[in-house]
Amino acid sequence: MDIVLIGSGNVASHLGTALHHANHHIVQVYSRKQSNALELAEQLNAEAISDLANLLPTADLYVISVKDDVITQVVEQMPETKGLVVHTAGSVSVDVLSRYKNYGVFYPFQTFIKSAHLQFDNIPILVEANTEKNTSTLLKLGKDLSGKVLRASSEQRGALHISAVFACNFVNHMYRLGEDVLKDSGLPFELLHPLIKETANKVMKFSPSVAQTGPASRNDQQIIQKHLKQLEGQHELAQIYELLTNSIIKFNQ
Amino acid sequence: MDIVLIGSGNVASHLGTALHHANHHIVQVYSRKQSNALELAEQLNAEAISDLANLLPTADLYVISVKDDVITQVVEQMPETKGLVVHTAGSVSVDVLSRYKNYGVFYPFQTFIKSAHLQFDNIPILVEANTEKNTSTLLKLGKDLSGKVLRASSEQRGALHISAVFACNFVNHMYRLGEDVLKDSGLPFELLHPLIKETANKVMKFSPSVAQTGPASRNDQQIIQKHLKQLEGQHELAQIYELLTNSIIKFNQ
Repeated sequence: MDIVLIGSGNVASHLGTALHHANHHIVQVYSRKQSNALELAEQLNAEAISDLANLLPTADLYVISVKDDVITQVVEQMPETKGLVVHTAGSVSVDVLSRYKNYGVFYPFQTFIKSAHLQFDNIPILVEANTEKNTSTLLKLGKDLSGKVLRASSEQRGALHISAVFACNFVNHMYRLGEDVLKDSGLPFELLHPLIKETANKVMKFSPSVAQTGPASRNDQQIIQKHLKQLEGQHELAQIYELLTNSIIKFNQ
Repeated sequence: MDIVLIGSGNVASHLGTALHHANHHIVQVYSRKQSNALELAEQLNAEAISDLANLLPTADLYVISVKDDVITQVVEQMPETKGLVVHTAGSVSVDVLSRYKNYGVFYPFQTFIKSAHLQFDNIPILVEANTEKNTSTLLKLGKDLSGKVLRASSEQRGALHISAVFACNFVNHMYRLGEDVLKDSGLPFELLHPLIKETANKVMKFSPSVAQTGPASRNDQQIIQKHLKQLEGQHELAQIYELLTNSIIKFNQ
Protein backbone atom coordinates (compact mmCIF):
# COMPACT_ATOMS: atom_id res chain seq x y z
CA MET A 1 0.00 0.00 0.00
CA ASP A 2 0.98 3.63 -0.51
CA ILE A 3 0.98 5.06 2.98
CA VAL A 4 1.22 8.61 4.35
CA LEU A 5 2.52 8.78 7.89
CA ILE A 6 1.28 11.73 9.92
CA GLY A 7 3.52 12.10 12.94
CA SER A 8 7.15 11.34 13.74
CA GLY A 9 7.03 10.34 17.41
CA ASN A 10 7.59 6.98 19.10
CA VAL A 11 4.61 5.12 17.64
CA ALA A 12 4.97 6.72 14.19
CA SER A 13 8.67 5.78 14.01
CA HIS A 14 8.23 2.15 15.07
CA LEU A 15 5.10 1.62 13.01
CA GLY A 16 6.52 3.36 9.95
CA THR A 17 9.66 1.23 10.16
CA ALA A 18 7.65 -1.98 10.51
CA LEU A 19 5.41 -1.08 7.55
CA HIS A 20 8.47 -0.19 5.47
CA HIS A 21 10.09 -3.55 6.30
CA ALA A 22 6.85 -5.31 5.36
CA ASN A 23 7.34 -3.82 1.87
CA HIS A 24 4.68 -1.17 2.09
CA HIS A 25 5.52 2.14 0.49
CA ILE A 26 5.71 5.10 2.87
CA VAL A 27 5.24 7.97 0.42
CA GLN A 28 5.20 10.91 2.85
CA VAL A 29 6.05 11.68 6.45
CA TYR A 30 4.40 14.73 8.00
CA SER A 31 5.57 16.48 11.14
CA ARG A 32 4.94 20.04 12.33
CA LYS A 33 8.71 20.29 12.60
CA GLN A 34 10.34 19.85 9.22
CA SER A 35 13.54 18.50 10.83
CA ASN A 36 11.60 15.72 12.59
CA ALA A 37 9.76 14.88 9.37
CA LEU A 38 13.07 14.78 7.50
CA GLU A 39 14.79 12.49 9.97
CA LEU A 40 12.11 9.81 9.82
CA ALA A 41 11.38 10.29 6.10
CA GLU A 42 15.02 9.63 5.26
CA GLN A 43 14.95 6.28 7.05
CA LEU A 44 11.76 5.31 5.26
CA ASN A 45 12.74 6.61 1.86
CA ALA A 46 9.78 9.00 1.89
CA GLU A 47 9.09 12.68 1.23
CA ALA A 48 9.12 14.94 4.29
CA ILE A 49 6.41 17.60 4.70
CA SER A 50 5.54 20.03 7.49
CA ASP A 51 2.34 21.49 6.02
CA LEU A 52 -0.78 19.33 5.87
CA ALA A 53 -1.90 21.24 2.78
CA ASN A 54 0.87 19.41 0.90
CA LEU A 55 -0.49 15.98 1.74
CA LEU A 56 -0.73 13.68 -1.28
CA PRO A 57 -4.48 13.10 -1.80
CA THR A 58 -4.01 9.79 -3.64
CA ALA A 59 -2.44 7.48 -1.04
CA ASP A 60 -4.20 4.25 -0.01
CA LEU A 61 -3.77 4.80 3.70
CA TYR A 62 -3.22 7.78 6.02
CA VAL A 63 -1.88 6.85 9.45
CA ILE A 64 -2.39 9.60 12.02
CA SER A 65 0.06 8.87 14.80
CA VAL A 66 0.29 12.06 16.84
CA LYS A 67 -0.43 12.92 20.47
CA ASP A 68 -4.03 12.12 21.31
CA ASP A 69 -4.98 15.75 21.88
CA VAL A 70 -3.59 16.80 18.48
CA ILE A 71 -5.60 14.29 16.44
CA THR A 72 -8.66 16.56 16.05
CA GLN A 73 -6.45 19.48 14.96
CA VAL A 74 -4.84 17.31 12.31
CA VAL A 75 -8.23 16.12 11.10
CA GLU A 76 -9.44 19.72 10.73
CA GLN A 77 -6.43 20.63 8.60
CA MET A 78 -6.21 17.48 6.48
CA PRO A 79 -7.53 17.73 2.92
CA GLU A 80 -10.27 15.43 1.62
CA THR A 81 -9.20 11.99 0.47
CA LYS A 82 -10.72 8.76 -0.70
CA GLY A 83 -7.95 6.83 1.03
CA LEU A 84 -8.46 5.05 4.33
CA VAL A 85 -7.70 7.36 7.26
CA VAL A 86 -6.78 5.75 10.60
CA HIS A 87 -5.40 6.84 13.92
CA THR A 88 -3.29 4.71 16.28
CA ALA A 89 -4.57 5.87 19.67
CA GLY A 90 -5.92 3.67 22.45
CA SER A 91 -8.28 6.11 24.09
CA VAL A 92 -9.66 8.04 21.12
CA SER A 93 -12.93 6.95 19.51
CA VAL A 94 -13.01 6.02 15.85
CA ASP A 95 -15.70 8.70 15.46
CA VAL A 96 -13.22 11.60 15.43
CA LEU A 97 -12.45 10.54 11.85
CA SER A 98 -16.08 10.35 10.69
CA ARG A 99 -15.74 13.25 8.23
CA TYR A 100 -13.84 10.87 5.95
CA LYS A 101 -15.45 8.38 3.64
CA ASN A 102 -13.16 5.58 4.79
CA TYR A 103 -11.82 5.58 8.32
CA GLY A 104 -10.74 3.40 11.16
CA VAL A 105 -8.29 2.68 13.95
CA PHE A 106 -5.04 0.71 13.83
CA TYR A 107 -3.82 0.37 17.41
CA PRO A 108 -0.53 -1.44 18.08
CA PHE A 109 -0.71 -2.38 21.75
CA GLN A 110 2.80 -1.87 23.05
CA THR A 111 4.98 0.69 24.86
CA PHE A 112 7.18 2.57 22.45
CA ILE A 113 10.31 4.54 23.12
CA LYS A 114 12.34 5.53 20.09
CA SER A 115 15.67 4.08 21.14
CA ALA A 116 14.38 0.59 22.03
CA HIS A 117 14.43 -1.88 19.16
CA LEU A 118 11.12 -3.73 18.85
CA GLN A 119 9.94 -6.87 17.10
CA PHE A 120 6.40 -6.31 15.87
CA ASP A 121 5.65 -10.05 15.46
CA ASN A 122 4.10 -10.48 18.91
CA ILE A 123 2.54 -7.08 19.36
CA PRO A 124 -1.26 -7.30 19.44
CA ILE A 125 -2.85 -4.96 16.87
CA LEU A 126 -6.45 -3.91 17.44
CA VAL A 127 -8.43 -2.68 14.45
CA GLU A 128 -11.79 -1.05 13.90
CA ALA A 129 -13.27 0.63 10.82
CA ASN A 130 -16.44 2.19 9.43
CA THR A 131 -17.12 -0.60 6.91
CA GLU A 132 -16.49 -4.32 6.72
CA LYS A 133 -14.27 -3.76 3.69
CA ASN A 134 -12.10 -1.26 5.55
CA THR A 135 -11.92 -3.58 8.56
CA SER A 136 -10.68 -6.36 6.26
CA THR A 137 -8.06 -4.07 4.79
CA LEU A 138 -6.77 -3.21 8.27
CA LEU A 139 -6.85 -6.84 9.46
CA LYS A 140 -4.80 -7.80 6.42
CA LEU A 141 -2.33 -4.96 6.98
CA GLY A 142 -2.03 -5.96 10.64
CA LYS A 143 -1.18 -9.52 9.64
CA ASP A 144 1.72 -8.20 7.57
CA LEU A 145 3.24 -6.98 10.84
CA SER A 146 2.04 -9.26 13.61
CA GLY A 147 0.70 -12.72 14.41
CA LYS A 148 -1.88 -11.22 16.75
CA VAL A 149 -4.44 -9.00 15.03
CA LEU A 150 -7.99 -8.60 16.30
CA ARG A 151 -11.11 -6.49 15.97
CA ALA A 152 -11.95 -4.29 18.95
CA SER A 153 -14.58 -1.62 19.46
CA SER A 154 -13.61 1.87 20.63
CA GLU A 155 -14.96 0.91 24.06
CA GLN A 156 -12.84 -2.25 24.26
CA ARG A 157 -9.77 -0.34 23.10
CA GLY A 158 -10.43 2.26 25.77
CA ALA A 159 -10.56 -0.40 28.49
CA LEU A 160 -7.36 -1.96 27.16
CA HIS A 161 -5.61 1.39 27.22
CA ILE A 162 -6.52 2.02 30.87
CA SER A 163 -5.43 -1.51 31.64
CA ALA A 164 -2.08 -0.70 30.02
CA VAL A 165 -1.70 2.43 32.11
CA PHE A 166 -1.74 0.14 35.15
CA ALA A 167 0.25 -2.80 33.74
CA CYS A 168 2.86 -0.71 31.94
CA ASN A 169 3.02 3.01 32.83
CA PHE A 170 2.36 2.55 36.54
CA VAL A 171 4.57 -0.55 36.61
CA ASN A 172 7.43 1.48 35.20
CA HIS A 173 6.77 4.15 37.80
CA MET A 174 7.03 1.45 40.49
CA TYR A 175 10.47 0.57 39.07
CA ARG A 176 11.35 4.23 39.35
CA LEU A 177 10.15 4.45 42.96
CA GLY A 178 12.13 1.27 43.71
CA GLU A 179 15.19 3.01 42.28
CA ASP A 180 14.39 6.05 44.40
CA VAL A 181 14.24 3.99 47.60
CA LEU A 182 17.70 2.58 46.86
CA LYS A 183 19.42 5.83 46.02
CA ASP A 184 20.97 6.52 49.45
CA SER A 185 21.80 2.87 50.22
CA GLY A 186 24.88 2.47 48.04
CA LEU A 187 23.22 -0.47 46.27
CA PRO A 188 22.72 -0.31 42.47
CA PHE A 189 19.32 -0.51 40.74
CA GLU A 190 20.71 -3.42 38.68
CA LEU A 191 20.27 -5.66 41.74
CA LEU A 192 16.55 -5.45 41.00
CA HIS A 193 16.85 -6.76 37.44
CA PRO A 194 16.39 -10.48 38.17
CA LEU A 195 13.44 -9.70 40.43
CA ILE A 196 11.82 -7.47 37.80
CA LYS A 197 12.27 -10.15 35.13
CA GLU A 198 10.87 -12.92 37.31
CA THR A 199 7.90 -10.78 38.40
CA ALA A 200 6.99 -10.27 34.73
CA ASN A 201 7.67 -13.92 33.81
CA LYS A 202 5.47 -15.23 36.58
CA VAL A 203 2.31 -13.60 35.21
CA MET A 204 2.92 -15.27 31.83
CA LYS A 205 2.19 -18.56 33.63
CA PHE A 206 0.11 -17.66 36.68
CA SER A 207 -2.66 -15.16 37.25
CA PRO A 208 -1.50 -12.04 39.13
CA SER A 209 -3.57 -13.06 42.15
CA VAL A 210 -1.67 -16.35 42.43
CA ALA A 211 1.67 -14.65 41.77
CA GLN A 212 1.29 -12.01 44.50
CA THR A 213 3.97 -12.18 47.23
CA GLY A 214 5.32 -9.81 49.87
CA PRO A 215 4.33 -8.37 53.24
CA ALA A 216 0.98 -6.98 52.06
CA SER A 217 -0.08 -10.30 50.54
CA ARG A 218 0.70 -12.00 53.90
CA ASN A 219 -0.81 -9.01 55.76
CA ASP A 220 2.43 -8.96 57.77
CA GLN A 221 1.71 -5.79 59.78
CA GLN A 222 5.01 -5.94 61.63
CA ILE A 223 7.00 -5.52 58.40
CA ILE A 224 4.49 -3.11 56.88
CA GLN A 225 4.74 -0.77 59.90
CA LYS A 226 8.53 -1.07 59.87
CA HIS A 227 8.62 -0.10 56.19
CA LEU A 228 6.27 2.85 56.75
CA LYS A 229 8.49 4.02 59.59
CA GLN A 230 11.55 3.84 57.31
CA LEU A 231 9.71 5.86 54.68
CA GLU A 232 8.85 8.63 57.16
CA GLY A 233 10.03 11.92 55.71
CA GLN A 234 9.46 10.65 52.17
CA HIS A 235 5.81 11.56 52.16
CA GLU A 236 5.01 10.50 48.63
CA LEU A 237 6.66 7.09 48.83
CA ALA A 238 4.91 6.47 52.17
CA GLN A 239 1.53 7.52 50.78
CA ILE A 240 1.84 5.23 47.76
CA TYR A 241 3.17 2.39 49.94
CA GLU A 242 0.16 2.66 52.23
CA LEU A 243 -2.50 2.94 49.52
CA LEU A 244 -1.18 -0.01 47.50
CA THR A 245 -0.59 -2.15 50.58
CA ASN A 246 -4.20 -1.61 51.68
CA SER A 247 -5.37 -2.35 48.16
CA ILE A 248 -3.50 -5.68 48.11
CA ILE A 249 -4.95 -6.59 51.51
CA LYS A 250 -8.47 -5.74 50.29
CA PHE A 251 -8.06 -7.81 47.11
CA ASN A 252 -7.00 -10.81 49.19
CA GLN A 253 -10.10 -10.69 51.39
CA MET B 1 27.79 -28.58 54.76
CA ASP B 2 25.26 -30.30 57.01
CA ILE B 3 22.28 -27.99 56.98
CA VAL B 4 19.09 -27.83 59.04
CA LEU B 5 16.25 -26.08 57.28
CA ILE B 6 13.75 -24.36 59.57
CA GLY B 7 10.63 -23.62 57.56
CA SER B 8 8.88 -25.20 54.58
CA GLY B 9 7.40 -22.20 52.78
CA ASN B 10 8.27 -20.63 49.43
CA VAL B 11 11.78 -19.44 50.28
CA ALA B 12 12.65 -22.55 52.32
CA SER B 13 11.54 -24.85 49.49
CA HIS B 14 13.45 -23.06 46.74
CA LEU B 15 16.55 -22.46 48.85
CA GLY B 16 16.56 -26.01 50.23
CA THR B 17 16.27 -27.44 46.74
CA ALA B 18 19.08 -25.23 45.45
CA LEU B 19 21.38 -26.20 48.37
CA HIS B 20 20.53 -29.87 47.85
CA HIS B 21 21.41 -29.62 44.15
CA ALA B 22 24.67 -27.90 45.07
CA ASN B 23 25.56 -31.09 46.97
CA HIS B 24 25.01 -29.78 50.44
CA HIS B 25 23.41 -32.15 52.89
CA ILE B 26 20.02 -31.09 54.23
CA VAL B 27 19.86 -33.19 57.40
CA GLN B 28 16.54 -31.96 58.83
CA VAL B 29 13.51 -29.97 57.77
CA TYR B 30 11.43 -28.39 60.51
CA SER B 31 7.87 -27.15 60.14
CA ARG B 32 5.20 -26.61 62.77
CA LYS B 33 3.04 -28.84 60.63
CA GLN B 34 4.55 -32.32 60.40
CA SER B 35 2.90 -32.88 56.99
CA ASN B 36 4.60 -29.79 55.53
CA ALA B 37 7.95 -30.83 57.01
CA LEU B 38 7.51 -34.32 55.55
CA GLU B 39 6.65 -33.11 52.07
CA LEU B 40 9.77 -30.98 51.72
CA ALA B 41 12.03 -33.38 53.68
CA GLU B 42 11.19 -36.20 51.27
CA GLN B 43 12.30 -34.13 48.29
CA LEU B 44 15.54 -33.24 50.03
CA ASN B 45 16.24 -36.66 51.46
CA ALA B 46 16.12 -35.23 55.00
CA GLU B 47 14.49 -36.01 58.33
CA ALA B 48 11.21 -34.20 59.04
CA ILE B 49 10.57 -32.71 62.48
CA SER B 50 7.79 -30.58 63.93
CA ASP B 51 9.25 -29.91 67.37
CA LEU B 52 12.25 -27.59 67.66
CA ALA B 53 13.42 -29.56 70.73
CA ASN B 54 14.36 -32.36 68.31
CA LEU B 55 16.72 -30.17 66.33
CA LEU B 56 20.11 -31.79 65.70
CA PRO B 57 22.61 -29.66 67.66
CA THR B 58 25.61 -30.65 65.52
CA ALA B 59 24.78 -29.28 62.07
CA ASP B 60 27.10 -26.74 60.40
CA LEU B 61 24.32 -24.36 59.40
CA TYR B 62 20.78 -23.59 60.54
CA VAL B 63 18.69 -21.71 57.99
CA ILE B 64 15.64 -20.03 59.52
CA SER B 65 13.28 -19.38 56.65
CA VAL B 66 9.91 -18.66 58.24
CA LYS B 67 7.54 -15.68 58.17
CA ASP B 68 9.31 -12.59 59.46
CA ASP B 69 7.11 -12.29 62.53
CA VAL B 70 7.77 -15.91 63.52
CA ILE B 71 11.58 -15.64 63.51
CA THR B 72 11.85 -14.44 67.13
CA GLN B 73 9.53 -17.25 68.31
CA VAL B 74 11.72 -19.81 66.57
CA VAL B 75 14.85 -18.30 68.10
CA GLU B 76 13.35 -18.53 71.61
CA GLN B 77 12.54 -22.22 71.15
CA MET B 78 15.72 -23.31 69.36
CA PRO B 79 18.31 -25.16 71.45
CA GLU B 80 21.90 -23.91 71.77
CA THR B 81 24.27 -24.74 68.94
CA LYS B 82 27.80 -23.98 67.83
CA GLY B 83 26.66 -24.08 64.21
CA LEU B 84 26.09 -20.96 62.18
CA VAL B 85 22.48 -19.72 62.50
CA VAL B 86 21.10 -17.52 59.72
CA HIS B 87 17.75 -16.13 58.67
CA THR B 88 16.69 -15.31 55.11
CA ALA B 89 14.56 -12.21 55.66
CA GLY B 90 14.99 -8.84 53.98
CA SER B 91 13.61 -6.59 56.65
CA VAL B 92 14.80 -8.31 59.84
CA SER B 93 18.05 -7.18 61.48
CA VAL B 94 20.86 -9.67 61.98
CA ASP B 95 20.67 -8.79 65.69
CA VAL B 96 17.61 -10.97 66.38
CA LEU B 97 20.04 -13.92 66.26
CA SER B 98 22.61 -12.43 68.64
CA ARG B 99 22.06 -15.05 71.36
CA TYR B 100 24.00 -17.48 69.17
CA LYS B 101 27.77 -17.68 69.01
CA ASN B 102 27.75 -17.72 65.21
CA TYR B 103 25.02 -15.96 63.31
CA GLY B 104 24.22 -14.10 60.16
CA VAL B 105 21.83 -13.44 57.30
CA PHE B 106 21.58 -15.20 53.95
CA TYR B 107 19.08 -13.26 51.85
CA PRO B 108 18.24 -14.49 48.34
CA PHE B 109 16.75 -11.47 46.60
CA GLN B 110 13.94 -12.86 44.48
CA THR B 111 10.17 -13.41 44.52
CA PHE B 112 9.33 -17.00 45.34
CA ILE B 113 6.14 -18.89 44.73
CA LYS B 114 6.32 -22.64 45.20
CA SER B 115 5.00 -23.70 41.84
CA ALA B 116 7.33 -21.52 39.74
CA HIS B 117 10.60 -23.16 38.76
CA LEU B 118 13.58 -20.91 39.46
CA GLN B 119 17.22 -20.82 38.39
CA PHE B 120 19.30 -19.59 41.31
CA ASP B 121 22.32 -18.65 39.12
CA ASN B 122 21.28 -15.04 38.64
CA ILE B 123 19.60 -14.37 41.95
CA PRO B 124 21.54 -11.84 44.03
CA ILE B 125 22.33 -13.21 47.49
CA LEU B 126 23.09 -10.70 50.25
CA VAL B 127 25.03 -11.90 53.26
CA GLU B 128 25.95 -10.48 56.66
CA ALA B 129 27.41 -12.17 59.74
CA ASN B 130 28.79 -11.48 63.19
CA THR B 131 32.41 -12.37 62.33
CA GLU B 132 34.60 -12.15 59.26
CA LYS B 133 34.95 -15.95 59.31
CA ASN B 134 31.18 -16.45 59.28
CA THR B 135 30.81 -13.86 56.52
CA SER B 136 33.34 -15.79 54.43
CA THR B 137 31.46 -19.04 55.02
CA LEU B 138 28.22 -17.44 53.80
CA LEU B 139 29.89 -15.78 50.80
CA LYS B 140 31.31 -19.16 49.81
CA LEU B 141 27.96 -20.88 50.28
CA GLY B 142 26.29 -18.15 48.23
CA LYS B 143 28.75 -18.73 45.39
CA ASP B 144 27.70 -22.39 45.28
CA LEU B 145 24.25 -21.17 44.26
CA SER B 146 24.64 -17.87 42.42
CA GLY B 147 27.05 -15.76 40.43
CA LYS B 148 25.95 -12.65 42.31
CA VAL B 149 26.80 -12.74 46.03
CA LEU B 150 27.52 -9.61 48.04
CA ARG B 151 27.87 -8.28 51.57
CA ALA B 152 25.11 -5.99 52.76
CA SER B 153 24.36 -4.46 56.14
CA SER B 154 20.97 -4.92 57.77
CA GLU B 155 20.21 -1.33 56.80
CA GLN B 156 21.09 -1.88 53.12
CA ARG B 157 19.07 -5.08 53.08
CA GLY B 158 16.13 -3.20 54.58
CA ALA B 159 16.29 -0.57 51.82
CA LEU B 160 16.53 -3.28 49.18
CA HIS B 161 13.49 -5.03 50.60
CA ILE B 162 11.37 -1.86 50.47
CA SER B 163 12.63 -1.28 46.96
CA ALA B 164 11.44 -4.79 46.08
CA VAL B 165 8.02 -4.11 47.52
CA PHE B 166 7.69 -1.37 44.90
CA ALA B 167 9.44 -3.10 41.98
CA CYS B 168 7.90 -6.53 42.54
CA ASN B 169 4.91 -6.71 44.93
CA PHE B 170 3.32 -3.45 43.81
CA VAL B 171 4.19 -4.18 40.20
CA ASN B 172 2.34 -7.47 40.44
CA HIS B 173 -0.59 -5.65 41.99
CA MET B 174 -0.59 -3.28 39.00
CA TYR B 175 -0.86 -6.36 36.75
CA ARG B 176 -3.82 -7.43 38.86
CA LEU B 177 -5.50 -4.04 38.59
CA GLY B 178 -4.87 -4.13 34.84
CA GLU B 179 -6.63 -7.49 34.76
CA ASP B 180 -9.45 -6.02 36.83
CA VAL B 181 -9.96 -3.13 34.39
CA LEU B 182 -10.31 -5.62 31.51
CA LYS B 183 -12.74 -8.01 33.18
CA ASP B 184 -15.96 -6.58 31.70
CA SER B 185 -14.49 -5.82 28.27
CA GLY B 186 -14.44 -9.33 26.84
CA LEU B 187 -10.69 -8.98 26.18
CA PRO B 188 -8.30 -11.51 27.76
CA PHE B 189 -5.48 -10.56 30.18
CA GLU B 190 -3.08 -12.40 27.84
CA LEU B 191 -3.25 -9.41 25.48
CA LEU B 192 -1.13 -7.60 28.07
CA HIS B 193 1.69 -10.19 28.03
CA PRO B 194 3.86 -8.59 25.31
CA LEU B 195 3.46 -5.18 26.96
CA ILE B 196 4.38 -6.54 30.39
CA LYS B 197 7.46 -8.27 28.97
CA GLU B 198 8.62 -5.20 27.06
CA THR B 199 8.04 -2.92 30.07
CA ALA B 200 10.33 -5.17 32.13
CA ASN B 201 12.89 -5.55 29.32
CA LYS B 202 13.15 -1.82 28.78
CA VAL B 203 14.47 -1.15 32.29
CA MET B 204 17.25 -3.69 31.75
CA LYS B 205 18.63 -1.24 29.17
CA PHE B 206 17.27 2.18 30.13
CA SER B 207 16.67 3.87 33.46
CA PRO B 208 13.01 3.87 34.50
CA SER B 209 12.86 7.66 34.03
CA VAL B 210 13.88 7.31 30.37
CA ALA B 211 11.55 4.33 29.86
CA GLN B 212 8.42 6.08 31.17
CA THR B 213 5.60 6.42 28.61
CA GLY B 214 1.86 7.05 28.75
CA PRO B 215 -0.59 9.89 29.34
CA ALA B 216 0.86 10.88 32.73
CA SER B 217 4.39 11.10 31.36
CA ARG B 218 3.11 13.43 28.61
CA ASN B 219 0.83 15.17 31.13
CA ASP B 220 -1.98 14.59 28.63
CA GLN B 221 -4.83 15.89 30.77
CA GLN B 222 -7.45 15.20 28.14
CA ILE B 223 -6.78 11.44 28.27
CA ILE B 224 -6.20 11.44 32.03
CA GLN B 225 -9.60 13.03 32.66
CA LYS B 226 -11.24 10.65 30.20
CA HIS B 227 -9.72 7.66 32.01
CA LEU B 228 -10.80 8.99 35.42
CA LYS B 229 -14.32 9.42 34.09
CA GLN B 230 -14.33 5.82 32.85
CA LEU B 231 -13.16 4.65 36.26
CA GLU B 232 -15.98 6.46 38.04
CA GLY B 233 -17.80 3.98 40.22
CA GLN B 234 -14.62 1.98 40.75
CA HIS B 235 -13.41 4.13 43.58
CA GLU B 236 -10.23 2.23 44.38
CA LEU B 237 -8.99 2.02 40.79
CA ALA B 238 -9.72 5.74 40.35
CA GLN B 239 -7.92 6.66 43.56
CA ILE B 240 -4.80 4.68 42.61
CA TYR B 241 -4.93 6.02 39.05
CA GLU B 242 -5.01 9.59 40.33
CA LEU B 243 -2.27 9.22 42.95
CA LEU B 244 0.16 7.47 40.60
CA THR B 245 -0.58 9.82 37.71
CA ASN B 246 0.18 12.83 39.91
CA SER B 247 3.33 11.13 41.16
CA ILE B 248 4.58 10.56 37.59
CA ILE B 249 3.83 14.18 36.71
CA LYS B 250 5.74 15.37 39.82
CA PHE B 251 8.74 13.17 39.03
CA ASN B 252 8.90 14.62 35.54
CA GLN B 253 9.02 18.21 36.77
